[in-house]
Parts: sequence; structure tokens; C-alpha cells
Amino acid sequence: MAIRSDIAWSTADRIVVRGRDLPREILGRMNLGDMAFLGLTGRVPNENQSTLFNALVVTLVEHGITPSALAARLTYLGAPEAMQAAVAAGLCGLGSVFVGSTEGVAKLLTENITKSAAQIVAEHKRLPGLGHPLHKDVDPRTVRLFEIGRETGFYGKFCTLMEAIGQERKLVVNATGAIGALSCELGLDWKAVRGLGVMARAVGLVGHILEESRQPMAQEVWERMEAEASAHLKPKT
Amino acid sequence: MAIRSDIAWSTADRIVVRGRDLPREILGRMNLGDMAFLGLTGRVPNENQSTLFNALVVTLVEHGITPSALAARLTYLGAPEAMQAAVAAGLCGLGSVFVGSTEGVAKLLTENITKSAAQIVAEHKRLPGLGHPLHKDVDPRTVRLFEIGRETGFYGKFCTLMEAIGQERKLVVNATGAIGALSCELGLDWKAVRGLGVMARAVGLVGHILEESRQPMAQEVWERMEAEASAHLKPKT
Amino acid sequence: MAIRSDIAWSTADRIVVRGRDLPREILGRMNLGDMAFLGLTGRVPNENQSTLFNALVVTLVEHGITPSALAARLTYLGAPEAMQAAVAAGLCGLGSVFVGSTEGVAKLLTENITKSAAQIVAEHKRLPGLGHPLHKDVDPRTVRLFEIGRETGFYGKFCTLMEAIGQERKLVVNATGAIGALSCELGLDWKAVRGLGVMARAVGLVGHILEESRQPMAQEVWERMEAEASAHLKPKT
Amino acid sequence: MAIRSDIAWSTADRIVVRGRDLPREILGRMNLGDMAFLGLTGRVPNENQSTLFNALVVTLVEHGITPSALAARLTYLGAPEAMQAAVAAGLCGLGSVFVGSTEGVAKLLTENITKSAAQIVAEHKRLPGLGHPLHKDVDPRTVRLFEIGRETGFYGKFCTLMEAIGQERKLVVNATGAIGALSCELGLDWKAVRGLGVMARAVGLVGHILEESRQPMAQEVWERMEAEASAHLKPKT
Repeated sequence: MAIRSDIAWSTADRIVVRGRDLPREILGRMNLGDMAFLGLTGRVPNENQSTLFNALVVTLVEHGITPSALAARLTYLGAPEAMQAAVAAGLCGLGSVFVGSTEGVAKLLTENITKSAAQIVAEHKRLPGLGHPLHKDVDPRTVRLFEIGRETGFYGKFCTLMEAIGQERKLVVNATGAIGALSCELGLDWKAVRGLGVMARAVGLVGHILEESRQPMAQEVWERMEAEASAHLKPKT
Repeated sequence: MAIRSDIAWSTADRIVVRGRDLPREILGRMNLGDMAFLGLTGRVPNENQSTLFNALVVTLVEHGITPSALAARLTYLGAPEAMQAAVAAGLCGLGSVFVGSTEGVAKLLTENITKSAAQIVAEHKRLPGLGHPLHKDVDPRTVRLFEIGRETGFYGKFCTLMEAIGQERKLVVNATGAIGALSCELGLDWKAVRGLGVMARAVGLVGHILEESRQPMAQEVWERMEAEASAHLKPKT
Repeated sequence: MAIRSDIAWSTADRIVVRGRDLPREILGRMNLGDMAFLGLTGRVPNENQSTLFNALVVTLVEHGITPSALAARLTYLGAPEAMQAAVAAGLCGLGSVFVGSTEGVAKLLTENITKSAAQIVAEHKRLPGLGHPLHKDVDPRTVRLFEIGRETGFYGKFCTLMEAIGQERKLVVNATGAIGALSCELGLDWKAVRGLGVMARAVGLVGHILEESRQPMAQEVWERMEAEASAHLKPKT
Repeated sequence: MAIRSDIAWSTADRIVVRGRDLPREILGRMNLGDMAFLGLTGRVPNENQSTLFNALVVTLVEHGITPSALAARLTYLGAPEAMQAAVAAGLCGLGSVFVGSTEGVAKLLTENITKSAAQIVAEHKRLPGLGHPLHKDVDPRTVRLFEIGRETGFYGKFCTLMEAIGQERKLVVNATGAIGALSCELGLDWKAVRGLGVMARAVGLVGHILEESRQPMAQEVWERMEAEASAHLKPKT
């Protein structure tokens, strides 16, 4: 079997990515989100696609002190010479519990787009993209993302269905629900949707590592947790 | 000691990142590169900063079938249910050999900005950011990045010094040299510069995983390499 | 909620792991496999348990040039200063496709121990632990592992059932089938069984990194694969 | 250049690792530490080597709630389906700050074995393997490890030199100092010594993941830290 990739090639005087000349057609013209869109679809986004896609990934960049950010900071404490490994450690936890729900929404909507919300709710005990422990009445990101969806002409049947599912279940559509639905509107493969969270979080984690290098918390987290965790085992003095 | 981070906070109706309201001030207004700039500097980039910074990270997104992309694809082969771990594996190798040279350039220029190119060359046996195995006469990315630097008003003393160092050593300034110099012009901490490569490559690796899921090469790479590596050990039949 | 761990504690003059004094009760008395058994069960293994458990993990240490070993070597090429990250990258791929089958066997046998082989085969389209692309007639590791199981008095109902399943399906019980069954005989939680492969492979990967540092292959793998993958894209000269 | 590895090969009826028949010569005869020794040296350890080498790695398996264990647990919280990625995240931080000191000791002793302790102390501002925040007067692991070194006939010039360096600097030789010195006595390449900590910690981390699955702390660590870290940013209510 042949080894084959269509992503990029270069010669002494040319560097071509996804069929576009990197220096002349990409640099200075496309932003980082556009480049990600190109990587996931093979197409340069138009202005509306660029605005919407960038909004989706930007939403996922930062959530403050998450388990992922803590893992990255604790890793950096032991290996400050290898910040790439700290970011990698932070990404390793973006699995089924957190970032997976965006993927779950995109998969659900892709596979059930011909059904009614009532039918989907009846068929699934657990539905991704609904509810939020903090944003109970409304998730302000969802409101804004669907608004951007309308402004860019991408609010369509997947968004409508997602909102109907939320109403049927009487739960707020959270940000991952909105992102999953809008990813479908953009025509993204649901298998690529987890990737939005992974790339976005990598961007955010670099910022966390930089803050940790200036204003550290990992040593303190470690010492407190170690002391508390083993307190019941140590001899009383 | 207190645990403290200034990155983000949220309440039932608000989500604030780096002091900006995420839904109202960020989503739909800032692209992914701008969000990264905000994370590294705490400031929203103006138009020129946005153009230049996005160009720097976009340059680093994709280099085709690199060791990093191969590691990610081989990891995905064994754990397709955990694509975040495949991206993480690909990031782990962004150390001193490849992405580290961008950091090295930024550190060198930051620490030696008052010296002449001749003096810097005399003091260092090995200098990062110079030469390229393929782009021997000129690195087309460097030409374009310095051009964008001039167009955005950021081509300054760091770029001048880097180009003088290249002339002094009679070696082409490669893309990492240009990115390191322009990062200094943007006022980025040299400690954050490796992070540009890390976040950019995360974006690129998601694209590689998606291609691997559709047009796989990892199994073939494995089988060929295994057969060749152990051929001298196996009994002749 | 309290933060609590029963694993270890130390004071100025004592270090205690799982209730045993590390210097006096563990060092010089327990080998690395015994220590792993202690970590997974909270008990010091007796001689038979030690022999069998060590055999199970030792089987999983080394399989030559696997996708996991290649990922580790390719990572080391870029970050030789961070060998821990190279081992981490190699571990990231030990998911559902390879190491997961040991876990699958242990889960299957644990949950179906009261059923007959015929019933289990009838209820499952795909069964883990059966068949091998190379060892088609017999997997020599399985033969030896079940022999050690008998010698140590642990060959019991889980092994019998696994062998019956193999006969029913007319497929050889492979090494992961034997390891999964013998893990059940040792009373290990099936959730811990994937961990046997993860710890074993970490041991093996350190050996691969050391060989790579002396007799490298990663650069060559990269260059060949890159050249072949993009050959169809490059202009014919 | 040829792709070549001397580690392992297999045919339909044979599996050979480092020149030994895995089922017949290794399984049931060698423990996990012996297998690691074989991987690092190419030699099957004799009884004394086995006892000493196993003691070195066993020492490094477990230190309770470390930054590495916390990173693994926080990762597992988000991706419980990928425990290999949680272990990988925990390994990523075994860099210069913690596990690197064992490597540093082995390198120091290897490169300076002909010098006196006084000379070595005079030439180095910072010396690895000395001092401990908790075990200030004596590190009980060091005492025991050197004792095992003597019992197995391996206490020699590297251990003597390490102890002399400790006396010269009036600091206790800690466990990493003893492990580094005894690794030299065993003839291990100093480049492999960091690997002892990496493989040992992988064993320990599997135990932490199992405890986390039964008696979790990661969610609580996250919630507490997040609340405290952003408290100064949130509006007072």
C-alpha cells in the first residue's frame, strides 16, 4: 500500500499547503482559525464561514482553572524545560466527559436530522449539549453563537433541531450544544468536531503555562493536596 | 500562599476572559489568533498586530509528514477513540530540535539586542534561525514574513539584527529566525515563543488525524518498519 | 468533600507505602512486579502470585517495532532532552485497538463467568483475546502462561472458560486472552487490567529510547515517509 | 540508511526478545525489574544484580500525591475511557526538577569519577542528589539502598564518592543520590537513568488511577482550586 498525504509539500523555492502557496496565498491573508478550517475541510473559508468558525473555536479556548489547565500547570512544575509536554498533558484529558459532548452533539444531529425533537428525546436517555451546572437559565455563549449563526446565514435545521430538543427536555442548550449544531451547519464531519476543542484548548493552555511561569500555583496545589490526602495516615504527634 | 489566576471567571450570567466579556466582546469579533495573542499578552491586538501575529502562527501550522505528524497518526491507530491523546503525542516532540529554535532566536535577540551582528556571531558557535536543508538560497516564508512585518509597521531592530546575523554567517535566515525576530518586535516574552509552535501544531495535527481517519498510512508505516527493522534477526527460511 | 488517598505517607524518618515501611519491608524484598501487584490490590503477593503476576506483565513489555515504539522514537528525535515525554507519547496509543483487548477479555469473563462458552459465543459477534495474524495455529505465549498458571495453582474457571470460547469459535487464544483470564484468576479488577499493558509498555519504551539514542531510526523513517507521502503532489522535474 | 532494531522478532512459532526465547527463557523466570534490566543492558541480571536493580526502581514507584499523580488523576477525570493517556500525562512532568536529579547524579559521577569530592564540590555550585526538605538528617531510603548495595557486592567507588560529596557539602545524600550512584555501580549508561524513574512512576500511576476510580479526588481538587483562583475576579455579591 502506498503512503500518501495530500496536506503539504515543498521544494527549494515553494511551500504549498492544501494546494495553496503558503507565503503568497496564505500568510497575511488567513488567520489561525481560517487555517484550521482549511485543514478540516480542504477549503479556504469565505468571510461568513471565517467569522462563524472562528467564533466556535474561540469559545472553547478558555475556561479558567479547569482539570486540563491544572494538569498542564502541575506538569510544567516538574519539567519547565518542556512546555510542549505540559500542553500535551493538559490535552490528554479532553475526552468523553468534557470536550466529547461537542462531538456527541454533532454525531447525534448528523444521524438524526430527519427525526423530530420529540422522537430523539424519546429514543435517548442521555442527550449531550443540554444543561449547565452554573448557567441554569440561559448559557450566554449559546445565545451569542446562534446570533452569529444567523448573522452569517448559517442558522439552519441543525440549530433549529437542537433548540427544539432543549425545549422538549426543558433544559438549556449549552455552549457545546450550540457548537455541535453550528459545526453541522458548516458541513464539518462530526469526527472532526472534537478536534475544535483540542486545538482551542492548546491555544488556551499556552497562556496558562505562561501565567504559571510568572504567578505559580502548582507547588501550592501539590503541597495542600498532599498534606490533606495523607493526613489520616500519618502518626498523630 | 494563595491560589490565584487572572485568566477567566464566570457566574450564572457572565463569562469573562482576560477582563473581556466572552459573548459580547470576544465572540464574533476576535479570531483564534487574536485570542492567542490576548492569552499571551493580556491585550486585544489592533489590526496590524492581528495580521502579523496570525501570520507567525499560521506559518507553523503545517509542514506535512513530520515526525510529530507521524507520532500522532501512529498513536491514533491504537486509540482512535482518544484523538486528543494522538494530538498530545504529536506535541510531545516539539522540543529543542525543531520548535525550540524559534524560542532560541527570540532569547538570543532579546538578550543581545545592544550588540552588533559581528559580535554575536563571534560569541556563539551555534546560532539558531539560520540555514535550511531544502531552502538553501532563500526561505520564501522569511521573505513574506518580513514583508508583512514592514506592511504592519513592525519590522524593526530585532529583524534588522537577525538579517545582519544571517549575512555575517553567510546563511539564509529561515522561517524560525523570522518568527523569533518578529515575536520580539511584537513584544512577546521569549518564554512564550515556543508556545506559538505548540498551539499552531495542535491545529495542524487535528487535520492530520482527520486525514488519517479517511486515508490511513500508520498501519503501513508500522508494517514496513517492523519488517525491515527485524529482518536481520529472523531465521532465514 | 475530603481529599484522601491511602497510598503513601512520609515523615522525617519514615516512608510508608500501602501500609508497609518502604526501606525496611519493601526495598530488597519486593521486585518491581510485586510492587505493581501491591499497588493494584493493596496486598503483598505470595510466591505463586508473584511468579504469575510478573509473567503476565513481562509478556507485555516488548513487541519490537510497534506503532507505540515508533511514536516514542519519533518524539525523542524532536525532544531528546525530555525522554519522559517520548515514553508518554508511546503510551498514548495503548487504547482500544491493542492493549484494550486484555481489558476486554477480563471484563467479558468477569461478567459472564456463569455462562457456557457456547452461550457467550452466541451472544457476542466480536470476542476479544482470540486469533492472531502471525501465530495462527498456536500462540506460544498462551501455552506458557497457562502452564505457569497451572504450576502456581491459579489455572481455574476463567482460564477454562477462555479456552472453551476459543474452541467454540475455532480460534487460537492469543496472549491477551491468556493474560485477561489469568488476571481474573488473580482477582484483579478488570478496570485495572489495561494498566498491566500500560506499565509493561513503559518499561519496554525506555529500552527503545535507549536504542534510538545509540542506533537511530526515526530520522530515516521520517525522511522516507515524507518523500513518499508527498511525491504525487510535487512538480515533476 | 537501514532501519534496524535488535530488540525483538517473531515468527509463527517463536517470539524472541533480546536474543532470548520469550515463552521458554523469560516467562516464569524473570520478574518485571529483570526484564527492565535486560532492556537497558542487553543482559539477564544475575541474582545480585536483580536484587539491587529491583530495589532502585521500586524506590521510585510511589511518593503518594505528587504533581505527577495529580496530573494523572485530573486527566482521568475528563477521559476515563483512556487511562493510558492519564498515565502519559502523569509521566510528562518527570523532567529536570524531580526525576532529572537521578540522571544528574549518574552523569556527575560518571564524568568525575577520577576527582576528589572536594574538587567536585569546588567546581560545582549546585550538586544533584543532596539534601531533602523532609528527611533533613538522614534519608532512610539511602541508608537501606547502600546497605543493599553492600549485601549484593555493588557498593563501590561511585557510592564512596557520592557519600564523600555529601560530607563535603554537609548535606544528606538523598534517595536520588543513592540511586544515581548505584546505577553507575551496575554499569548503567547515565542516559538510561532517567528511564528508571519513568518506568517506575508508570507502575505507580496505574495504582493512582485505580484508586481515583474508586475514591476520587480530582473533581474536588478542581472545584476548590477554581473557586479560590478566580475569587478576586468575581463581582462581590
